[in-house]
Amino acid sequence: MSTEYIKSVVKTIPNYPKPGIQFRDVTSVLEDHQAFSSCIALMVEKFGPMNFDKVAGTEARGFLFGAPLAIELGIGFIPVRKPGKLPREVISESYELEYGMDTMEIHKDAVKPGERVLMIDDLLATGGTMVATANLIKSLGGIVEHAGFVISLPDIGGAARLAEQGISSFALCEFEGE
Amino acid sequence: MSTEYIKSVVKTIPNYPKPGIQFRDVTSVLEDHQAFSSCIALMVEKFGPMNFDKVAGTEARGFLFGAPLAIELGIGFIPVRKPGKLPREVISESYELEYGMDTMEIHKDAVKPGERVLMIDDLLATGGTMVATANLIKSLGGIVEHAGFVISLPDIGGAARLAEQGISSFALCEFEGE
Repeated sequence: MSTEYIKSVVKTIPNYPKPGIQFRDVTSVLEDHQAFSSCIALMVEKFGPMNFDKVAGTEARGFLFGAPLAIELGIGFIPVRKPGKLPREVISESYELEYGMDTMEIHKDAVKPGERVLMIDDLLATGGTMVATANLIKSLGGIVEHAGFVISLPDIGGAARLAEQGISSFALCEFEGE
Repeated sequence: MSTEYIKSVVKTIPNYPKPGIQFRDVTSVLEDHQAFSSCIALMVEKFGPMNFDKVAGTEARGFLFGAPLAIELGIGFIPVRKPGKLPREVISESYELEYGMDTMEIHKDAVKPGERVLMIDDLLATGGTMVATANLIKSLGGIVEHAGFVISLPDIGGAARLAEQGISSFALCEFEGE
């Protein structure tokens, strides 16, 4: 159950999806049972004592870690998805990307007022998706103070951006300007 | 741990995504810890004794059930995704939809020759995505004889289509012509 082992399993794809980007690939973590189950066990160790009511995971890689974590924590899982993917009544939140905009949606009945929601995604870069997700949950009356990730890229500033929103972030491993 | 309970939690959305379709919504299962964890426990009961080497889950709802199942079975998880989403070298398989085509991709190194792979998705309708996924796994030398689902719609014929390919399907609950 070591974070060094998890970090060693993450593959780095140079110049993907575009030149100059070092893409940190978590699919190699999923394929390695020891690494994948360690991710979930370490998140349970961190977040178990904090008594959340729900885990929210963002499409699609956030599903991979958020769903097993929700099961282990004994609480429900909320999918946060791209537009048009959720069948019931939703609310939407748009946010800026480096070029253009993106939108995330959540079911209107997914969070009850006062519920404490833990956000999970595979990787924290700019934090844009997480801020949008937090806004959706807060719009429904939920409380969002914590987010968990397998990987954080601290140079890109996502943790600072989340902190400005009153959200503390926790990552199992970090990759700095490499 | 009853399938009747799981079935009772599935919400039906009339006329979604288009008129005449009764959409069976598994997100309500995810939000209910008892239902979600029962899904995984029942799949472990079914598939645990069969000694698979990997679980393959299809984007995106297949991730939600396949990832926790892989962790519980103590084996690796392979994501099968829409084009352009997997960062390493992939192989692709296109298949027909009711109108048009779709394509799924898998990492070339995700399956080793001779590995026994269990396919997992949320819902079995026509079986088109599952046949495409099976073809990808077989192209890499994997063995695919079983697929598991939360929901099956037997009227649409997916189980029969998978059986023609030598794949037996197992679903936790069925919704017939309702």
